[in-house]
Amino acid sequence: MRPPPEPAAGLDLVKASVREQPAYSLKTHSARRKLNQNESPYDVSPPLKRQIAERLAAVPWHRYPEFTPTQLLDQLAARYGWPAEGILVGNGSNELIQASMAVTLESGDRVVAPAPTFSLYRLLAGVFGARYVPVALGSDFGYRIESLIEVAVRERARVVVLNSPNNPTGSALPPDAVERVLAATDALVLCDEAYQDFGGPTAVGLLATSPRVVVLRTFSKAFGLAGLRLGLALAHPAVAREIAKAKLPYNVNSLSLTAVSLLLAHPETESRVAEIVATRERAAARLRAMPGLTVYPSAANFILIRCLTVPARDVFRRLLEDYGILVRDVSAAPELAECLRISIGTPEDMDAVVDAMQAILGSR
Amino acid sequence: MRPPPEPAAGLDLVKASVREQPAYSLKTHSARRKLNQNESPYDVSPPLKRQIAERLAAVPWHRYPEFTPTQLLDQLAARYGWPAEGILVGNGSNELIQASMAVTLESGDRVVAPAPTFSLYRLLAGVFGARYVPVALGSDFGYRIESLIEVAVRERARVVVLNSPNNPTGSALPPDAVERVLAATDALVLCDEAYQDFGGPTAVGLLATSPRVVVLRTFSKAFGLAGLRLGLALAHPAVAREIAKAKLPYNVNSLSLTAVSLLLAHPETESRVAEIVATRERAAARLRAMPGLTVYPSAANFILIRCLTVPARDVFRRLLEDYGILVRDVSAAPELAECLRISIGTPEDMDAVVDAMQAILGSR
Repeated sequence: MRPPPEPAAGLDLVKASVREQPAYSLKTHSARRKLNQNESPYDVSPPLKRQIAERLAAVPWHRYPEFTPTQLLDQLAARYGWPAEGILVGNGSNELIQASMAVTLESGDRVVAPAPTFSLYRLLAGVFGARYVPVALGSDFGYRIESLIEVAVRERARVVVLNSPNNPTGSALPPDAVERVLAATDALVLCDEAYQDFGGPTAVGLLATSPRVVVLRTFSKAFGLAGLRLGLALAHPAVAREIAKAKLPYNVNSLSLTAVSLLLAHPETESRVAEIVATRERAAARLRAMPGLTVYPSAANFILIRCLTVPARDVFRRLLEDYGILVRDVSAAPELAECLRISIGTPEDMDAVVDAMQAILGSR
Repeated sequence: MRPPPEPAAGLDLVKASVREQPAYSLKTHSARRKLNQNESPYDVSPPLKRQIAERLAAVPWHRYPEFTPTQLLDQLAARYGWPAEGILVGNGSNELIQASMAVTLESGDRVVAPAPTFSLYRLLAGVFGARYVPVALGSDFGYRIESLIEVAVRERARVVVLNSPNNPTGSALPPDAVERVLAATDALVLCDEAYQDFGGPTAVGLLATSPRVVVLRTFSKAFGLAGLRLGLALAHPAVAREIAKAKLPYNVNSLSLTAVSLLLAHPETESRVAEIVATRERAAARLRAMPGLTVYPSAANFILIRCLTVPARDVFRRLLEDYGILVRDVSAAPELAECLRISIGTPEDMDAVVDAMQAILGSR
């Protein structure tokens, strides 16, 4: 292996706009309690995994996946009460967010979204040359639909992104929010419902009333299948057909397609949602009782806290180093100064979090 | 499930440039002998699949894949003699072609590529607003490097795509072609080597001499893992870091990562390449001996033929309907009029092809 040569010539060919972007990298810490990526703390049970793995061995590995995964789409159609022709599966829901934006956004178009929210929307809006217009959430990070609509109308937004429950705040939309945005604007309303199984309303029922709604869901959170990378988009069949043009073909592999299809038919998969919600409520109440913290209301499988007495980065570091608890430090964003996001783990994980927080905040 | 409403309002939000594009759809025929997607005719052996499937059951499904799949990258580094920092894995090599173009192409830039070739390059160049400049292959679809260089220089190409062996013609580059293109131009040279295991030179050795080379490989063909969707790009580490910015994170799922890593360590996987090449040579020789056909030289796991006496679409239909043999009808492209692409299957598959062709061409 010879050492690589001077890279200048190759880098010159990379667009300046790309070179200026910091590389997306995740500093990987290993920790006993991994509460940083909003994963489910529960894996599929070993006997069920073994049973599914046997079926994976029976799938042809040397053949491309089906061009249209008919069986899985039919299962999803039954589940969501929406025609299979209006459902797309993607390699994670990120890919479908990307495809939805790719087919709608032209240079200069406006994308309106809450702030703070999932960083991918801003990144992708930039990729497609659109102008990203964030609208601040209110006190306690609640959605302010009036001002969101006002901005969307003023900016003639082509796309409005609503993430509910919103990552990383946990805020759920008010029940009639999507209808109101649809009624007041001409925008495509991208409803990212990655966390909706854990709380808040769903826009799935609105699909039948407006072709301007796209609902995004994922198997990474409530289904606990982050490793399998499967997301879906629900939209009017005619709109879904357009979004599909922006996806590369064969984007979901045969193993994940097969595993998710088998798991969808199995009741085990979703029984954990109520348990995670109960764990969240219990942990949130105990953290709320602690001085030195603001705990924001959450309808998701994570809680956002703000550290009032000890700097968030110190809390982050002590949780990790002294207690083996890895959370997400989101405090770099100005509106999230001193904030940490804690994924809901097992009841034991959350007891450990509460005990550790008590020790860290009390020991000051 | 209510019927979806009138779609007009939603479709208006889709860009005209997208709406004008035909939806990419693959008419799926089922056939006993599937020779239309250049897949390997050989699946991983059942005992090895079962052994790997057991390991898949031990992977955490509820956790995101590793941000950087270190073990697999180290294996690939050893295999290709190139540092792991200069290797990216993607959800199929298509995703890495897309990412490579995304970070280099600005509106109006020129992409030079052979014609005919894999249709994705033109499609993606269009997505990024670049101008696609095809350079015709020569007689027998051989690469004409002189004219390719001439056009690349004249057009000040930002990207030159070289697909070797070229799909769908099977043409391999002359041994010094990539060096010559590098020396004569300032372009990024994207060497798509999806089929290189079956024949022709590789540009992997040039990585150490120029940061303007990106080599793309796939596990879908020689490795026979089309269902697992795994491709890779090799480039200067500094260039690879830039290309990575255009990929969505966690793009390869844990099951495929694990399976490919285990298979790379297993000698079974590649023992089939020599067999497929021998089958190709035998089938090509027998088809060449047949009047009414041109059989083009191929270094890949497929053969391109031109039907001189019976229309290609009739040959396609009779192969499928009367003999259960599915090939790819590529005759829609003007330079491929009356051409069919036949993937190399098992020796029995190819005997069946030869017998069927004899009957179809002779029965006229």
